Amino acid sequence: MSNDKDTSKLWGGRFSEPTDSFVQRYTASVTFDQRMAAEDIAGSRAHASMLASVGVLSAEELQQIQDGLDQVAAEIEAGEFQWSIELEDVHMNIEARLTELIGITGKKLHTGRSRNDQVATDIRLYLRGAIDRIAEELTRVQRGTIGLAADNTATIMPGFTHLQTAQPVSFGHHLLAWNEMLERDYGRLMDCRARMNQSPLGAAALAGTTYPIDRAQTAASLGFDKPTENSLDSVSDRDFAIEFCSFASLLMTHLSRMSEELVIWTSAQFNFIELPDRFCTGSSIMPQKKNPDVPELVRGKVGRVNGHLISLLTLMKSQPLAYNKDNQEDKEPLFDTIDTVLDSLRAFADMVPAIKPREVNMREAARSGFSTATDLADYLVGLGLPFRDAHEVVGKAVAHGVESGLDLAEMDLATLQGFCADIGEDVFDVLTLEGSIGARDHLGGTAPAQVAAAAVRANALLDQR
Amino acid sequence: MSNDKDTSKLWGGRFSEPTDSFVQRYTASVTFDQRMAAEDIAGSRAHASMLASVGVLSAEELQQIQDGLDQVAAEIEAGEFQWSIELEDVHMNIEARLTELIGITGKKLHTGRSRNDQVATDIRLYLRGAIDRIAEELTRVQRGTIGLAADNTATIMPGFTHLQTAQPVSFGHHLLAWNEMLERDYGRLMDCRARMNQSPLGAAALAGTTYPIDRAQTAASLGFDKPTENSLDSVSDRDFAIEFCSFASLLMTHLSRMSEELVIWTSAQFNFIELPDRFCTGSSIMPQKKNPDVPELVRGKVGRVNGHLISLLTLMKSQPLAYNKDNQEDKEPLFDTIDTVLDSLRAFADMVPAIKPREVNMREAARSGFSTATDLADYLVGLGLPFRDAHEVVGKAVAHGVESGLDLAEMDLATLQGFCADIGEDVFDVLTLEGSIGARDHLGGTAPAQVAAAAVRANALLDQR
Amino acid sequence: MSNDKDTSKLWGGRFSEPTDSFVQRYTASVTFDQRMAAEDIAGSRAHASMLASVGVLSAEELQQIQDGLDQVAAEIEAGEFQWSIELEDVHMNIEARLTELIGITGKKLHTGRSRNDQVATDIRLYLRGAIDRIAEELTRVQRGTIGLAADNTATIMPGFTHLQTAQPVSFGHHLLAWNEMLERDYGRLMDCRARMNQSPLGAAALAGTTYPIDRAQTAASLGFDKPTENSLDSVSDRDFAIEFCSFASLLMTHLSRMSEELVIWTSAQFNFIELPDRFCTGSSIMPQKKNPDVPELVRGKVGRVNGHLISLLTLMKSQPLAYNKDNQEDKEPLFDTIDTVLDSLRAFADMVPAIKPREVNMREAARSGFSTATDLADYLVGLGLPFRDAHEVVGKAVAHGVESGLDLAEMDLATLQGFCADIGEDVFDVLTLEGSIGARDHLGGTAPAQVAAAAVRANALLDQR
Amino acid sequence: MSNDKDTSKLWGGRFSEPTDSFVQRYTASVTFDQRMAAEDIAGSRAHASMLASVGVLSAEELQQIQDGLDQVAAEIEAGEFQWSIELEDVHMNIEARLTELIGITGKKLHTGRSRNDQVATDIRLYLRGAIDRIAEELTRVQRGTIGLAADNTATIMPGFTHLQTAQPVSFGHHLLAWNEMLERDYGRLMDCRARMNQSPLGAAALAGTTYPIDRAQTAASLGFDKPTENSLDSVSDRDFAIEFCSFASLLMTHLSRMSEELVIWTSAQFNFIELPDRFCTGSSIMPQKKNPDVPELVRGKVGRVNGHLISLLTLMKSQPLAYNKDNQEDKEPLFDTIDTVLDSLRAFADMVPAIKPREVNMREAARSGFSTATDLADYLVGLGLPFRDAHEVVGKAVAHGVESGLDLAEMDLATLQGFCADIGEDVFDVLTLEGSIGARDHLGGTAPAQVAAAAVRANALLDQR
Repeated sequence: MSNDKDTSKLWGGRFSEPTDSFVQRYTASVTFDQRMAAEDIAGSRAHASMLASVGVLSAEELQQIQDGLDQVAAEIEAGEFQWSIELEDVHMNIEARLTELIGITGKKLHTGRSRNDQVATDIRLYLRGAIDRIAEELTRVQRGTIGLAADNTATIMPGFTHLQTAQPVSFGHHLLAWNEMLERDYGRLMDCRARMNQSPLGAAALAGTTYPIDRAQTAASLGFDKPTENSLDSVSDRDFAIEFCSFASLLMTHLSRMSEELVIWTSAQFNFIELPDRFCTGSSIMPQKKNPDVPELVRGKVGRVNGHLISLLTLMKSQPLAYNKDNQEDKEPLFDTIDTVLDSLRAFADMVPAIKPREVNMREAARSGFSTATDLADYLVGLGLPFRDAHEVVGKAVAHGVESGLDLAEMDLATLQGFCADIGEDVFDVLTLEGSIGARDHLGGTAPAQVAAAAVRANALLDQR
Repeated sequence: MSNDKDTSKLWGGRFSEPTDSFVQRYTASVTFDQRMAAEDIAGSRAHASMLASVGVLSAEELQQIQDGLDQVAAEIEAGEFQWSIELEDVHMNIEARLTELIGITGKKLHTGRSRNDQVATDIRLYLRGAIDRIAEELTRVQRGTIGLAADNTATIMPGFTHLQTAQPVSFGHHLLAWNEMLERDYGRLMDCRARMNQSPLGAAALAGTTYPIDRAQTAASLGFDKPTENSLDSVSDRDFAIEFCSFASLLMTHLSRMSEELVIWTSAQFNFIELPDRFCTGSSIMPQKKNPDVPELVRGKVGRVNGHLISLLTLMKSQPLAYNKDNQEDKEPLFDTIDTVLDSLRAFADMVPAIKPREVNMREAARSGFSTATDLADYLVGLGLPFRDAHEVVGKAVAHGVESGLDLAEMDLATLQGFCADIGEDVFDVLTLEGSIGARDHLGGTAPAQVAAAAVRANALLDQR
Repeated sequence: MSNDKDTSKLWGGRFSEPTDSFVQRYTASVTFDQRMAAEDIAGSRAHASMLASVGVLSAEELQQIQDGLDQVAAEIEAGEFQWSIELEDVHMNIEARLTELIGITGKKLHTGRSRNDQVATDIRLYLRGAIDRIAEELTRVQRGTIGLAADNTATIMPGFTHLQTAQPVSFGHHLLAWNEMLERDYGRLMDCRARMNQSPLGAAALAGTTYPIDRAQTAASLGFDKPTENSLDSVSDRDFAIEFCSFASLLMTHLSRMSEELVIWTSAQFNFIELPDRFCTGSSIMPQKKNPDVPELVRGKVGRVNGHLISLLTLMKSQPLAYNKDNQEDKEPLFDTIDTVLDSLRAFADMVPAIKPREVNMREAARSGFSTATDLADYLVGLGLPFRDAHEVVGKAVAHGVESGLDLAEMDLATLQGFCADIGEDVFDVLTLEGSIGARDHLGGTAPAQVAAAAVRANALLDQR
Repeated sequence: MSNDKDTSKLWGGRFSEPTDSFVQRYTASVTFDQRMAAEDIAGSRAHASMLASVGVLSAEELQQIQDGLDQVAAEIEAGEFQWSIELEDVHMNIEARLTELIGITGKKLHTGRSRNDQVATDIRLYLRGAIDRIAEELTRVQRGTIGLAADNTATIMPGFTHLQTAQPVSFGHHLLAWNEMLERDYGRLMDCRARMNQSPLGAAALAGTTYPIDRAQTAASLGFDKPTENSLDSVSDRDFAIEFCSFASLLMTHLSRMSEELVIWTSAQFNFIELPDRFCTGSSIMPQKKNPDVPELVRGKVGRVNGHLISLLTLMKSQPLAYNKDNQEDKEPLFDTIDTVLDSLRAFADMVPAIKPREVNMREAARSGFSTATDLADYLVGLGLPFRDAHEVVGKAVAHGVESGLDLAEMDLATLQGFCADIGEDVFDVLTLEGSIGARDHLGGTAPAQVAAAAVRANALLDQR
């Protein structure tokens, strides 16, 4: 990165002393905004074509600009482009090089636009592309999750509340709960995309321009749904970045919850699943360790994304219109959020299908812990007790079980009848794990048939994307 | 609030010692969740009706329950209900009172549900109601803003970037930039509503229930679009609260930006607008003060809402499924966010239409500060100069103006020609304020006709709500 | 709370229309700042005494004011004080009542001060009192933690990294890690107290006052270390609130880590400890549940406190000096943070000493999982292998153990020698749990003697407070 | 950065399949933790020396290691070091290269330590160095601020509350308010440094080590005040990073407040100061613009730092002890916070002394706006009116002034007497700007002599650092 290129500043006419070199570095954005080079060039192409359409550029000038941009793009692609701190940002770097290549016509490209609408256009294009890649990875995670669920509709594990054994559930049912979170995330992502896909190009510095521009044309050629409605808003708005980061915070929160479960499930004490070695790492000092690094890291990365959301909200707080330099701070949090989300989804997309449930351990855990106590209570209600009284009876049976070391299904009929005389032999049917999960046979319940049907519906939604 | 009601705990069968009284207070939620009493009763009515439909309750039992709930509702309405800390939450308080009133049948109401799905239902109902009230207030703010804009399409003020005079704009255009922000907020609010309007009732504790419940019936009778898909997700999901707070943070950020402008505009140095006395307060010590308290307070309240968003995101970070007690902490941030948003919108809805622009001061400010420099540059481009060279020329003219104390429109033709010989007498047309704003005559631009048309379109969108 | 008291506004002289009644409620703070009534009265007493000392009030006037304040304090104490929304805040409510009681002299109390320095004084006094109560509760948690540690210096549990068994540690050692976090919290709390204990009284509205006040006198009589240095800063500064909330966020983060461990340890799968019933609650539907509600709720409350920290930081972001109405938003987050910290510490202070380790389960967990693999590696280093090679050898032994189902201590000598021929019979000494923890015998290590000494040092620090 | 170096993993013995290459990149930290290379080498030198002291390494081995580390350091310094993603982090990269250079002895360096205590040591050393550089820059900003204040003790500007003219103040007084904020920041920075300057080295993986290490020796040789107390805490603690970021958030909040004032003061409407061109930039489209980019950017960067604070708090929330992979996420927020703070302070240190007050404009602004209304009220109190009544009288005079367009000092005596008959000719002394500021002559007040004395005291504090 050169800091001393001797191109004169593109706005220097009014100034009597040069920018301090530290200030130059402090205020420059080219170190991070160069990643929008492709979008900047695409925007310039569309703008130039429009200027030609409305007669501001000649056909020949347009051709020169397009050829020049071809070369600039090629140089960047090849890693041969000389980025310069002195030229501040990706926009000025590209324009300066273009002018070097094609002369005076390069300077005409900026007619009828400003960096304020240019950067707003570039960042929306960049984000839209990122959203599309994220949608793909998110779908891939969901496919893997639903697939694993479909294979495990009848695999029984303890369902937890408060990390205490609550009721037996199907492992597939648990996985589909993950999918529900992700399905909502997808919806939020698409809403964000729909709302941000409007073209700010033509807002110019803040008020529009005196040239006879055709905003509908540039919007269409860049794939935007339409032009934005208000020029002041167009250059000062960063809602799309904040809305995207809100989506990302919630997605990463979901991944952190799944990660927490993976970490707990791989502990020696739970030992519910096996994670393939390739998603784990070892210890430099403890030779026996196999650490679930990937879920731990994903869990940690929610902090980063929440932080970026707060960065952006703080950034925009009480900023008067229209554009202020503060807004340059929007890019790094946004870019890092995109990268983090993409990588974390990729990690999950690869990892989830490779999870191996340890069915025996899961089942054994579900069998103990009085997980079918609610079923016993429901059985008693069937005999005519009000639910609250049935609850009380079962509470006493459980207290006896804690003392005697027996689970409910292990007590003999006489013992159970000691708590409620009406209990019959058929009670043992409801106290089995299969009986318990099978009985929750309604939409959203954990009965295997319901889970299988839910997996089919979930996949069908993915097919419609 | 009674802390010592001697009703025994509804879950005490398994326990050997009573809850510590401090712990009782620390873990109770009734002090804040009682505001969901109406929703809790509505949910219970729907649940009871459904239980009767499927034969779990008799018609007579249903009637008893509905009558009992009538009385409970009346007692709450009248402020005569005895809330008890010992009964933990709104759900148990209401159920205990119902049972006091109608006896054993009251205990049957809890058949086939749990507090986990009950609270999820209540909070969604409550939030949905709040969203609808917020939508109304937001629309009212937009109406007022658009109305003021429509009255001021040709009122000229300086447009700012970096709080430096940039180009003249129409005051109405500036106000419509505010409306664009709010229009996006409305969209996000409606997306949130659509996504959250599903019924978790029937998820029971976490796995569904063994009773033959009809979740579609309860969903429909409570105005939900459909039942949720997965019971584990239904009791652990708090996405709707977070998504709503994300909406609220962005809305309040917008209000903070408008507030900042109002505060700056009412300063003696800007003096662009007058706020009616009733939105201002004075000083206990400085008799001359008239402080713009309402916008200042709104600006401050963005902190509160951002804080609540972080509360909820932190709360959910790395929580394993399904329900954990942590989730009880979802309510206070959500409720306070609702209250803050409603009040702040109301303040703006009342205040915005009462803003009086000081047109003379605005115009005088726009006239100075070389606000038409860009117009001069565009004029030069019309003469054939590349934009970048025109920029350079005007920069020199401005530097001369700073030294000589003359604005561009105040220089004589000869002086201007000193910077570029081709300048003609017609230059003075583009250097007027009316010329400048009138020339930005395209969709989204600040020309008065464009602003008027934009106001019509903006109002039309409100009409469609 | 009355909203229509007909006392005229204390600053109304300049105003031509009354405050809107909604605006009155929206901008009033008395609903929450009345909790500083005692501090407000203390500040007024000190201010009045000083005014008398410097001759601004007569001795008789001072006596009237002190008597009047006695009565006001008594009315508040007795719950008979009529708080009025129209009088905005605690300061004006008290002063208006004082003037009602003692007439014109009551109006003289405000001489030489403003609400701006008055509220700054009140809030510092209030916070200082809260800090002192928090310091006591924090010390109580530490006492309990160290006490439990001292009883368990030789209780062996698995030490975890990545929630995977790493090396055996003493349970007491683990508890002292908790104490280290809390010890740093105490240090931060005391630093905060020292920095904030300065008197802003006398800064008046923002610039000081023309009366011959003696700021050193009021500072001393209110227990402040000294007066603040700059009047503008005194009324605009809210650092103390932010610094306190930073302390609180870190403390609550620590409590959330301890809580997470308690929740995991009480799961059926870990079953490392027993929490007394009085810190747990049950389920309305699952009769067997005993949920660790208190640690779960503490864990959740870190969100709330982090949120308040962000509220305050956002609030102060880019506020110009000196006082702005925004600052009124400082109190609710601060008060709720104080309450949350105090309650959560109290919960831990009561709960920690009541934790019962299940020593057999802990030991059994430590015995498995190859927790002494590092000890074997160290043993091999003692035989002359470089550590990295020893690590490799043990890694292979562990892989064999995973396959064969044998822990290291369960393999026979010949098997071990298969991995490294030089291993002798003495290897079994280092593979025992006692051998392993006893060997880490240096400052900060887990050897029981070190842990016992550390507990003594930790208690000694508490004794010095 | 090489991703395919064929060095085998240092912990691979137990693993049956290689790490996925994406996972390798996702979990590696060397791209960002290589900036701690110097600290890592310093820590290794101290550790090796200690191992030699206690007889674990021979003198010859120690020499080999020190020589090898010399070469590694030289390679890094020269930019010739081959960093490898496969080797995960700075620690393994350096150790692997050392072993390449000196053979088997290189492997012995890791005896008695783990990456867990190694990284904790490195990051504390790095942060300590950063704190010391920050302390210098912060002092430089304070020197500049106090210097400008000392030059402007009698420069009069309007003091604002609510951005409304309140009372005249000395510009120097305002600047010293800035210094007070920074002085507290310095205190917090030093408290953070004192608390974090303890050596975790020797904690090893989590439980200490079986080697006869001397932690006091390594602590002393690395400049730490003492070793940490508890090994589990030593590897899991990240308080220092959070406490530093709390300091940084508050500092940046202060800089954002100063920046806001600079932006407002450089607006055409205020025009209170001139910022040298070198701290400003221009516009690509508006030739007249001179934008206060540096303060705007500093103001924006508070968002970034608040975000990092939330990242770290979220990261640590509910992490069980001891080390988890999540913690790897501590570095990037910390490093970026350090960079941001250092750069922003440097910008202010250069910029503040270059601020030129426009004294005429400031004075003119102070003269209008009824800024001496409080002085008139105080004058009336001197005549015997209670303050509250005086306030009322002046309020009416101001209302008259608003209508008539006259400031208080511009009304004639008769007019003033119309509001209070006792007013005499001497009233005009208190209504002058000099009279007003001169009369606030007490510690912390704005009288020029007080400001001058405060500047001397402030500088004296800097001299003691």
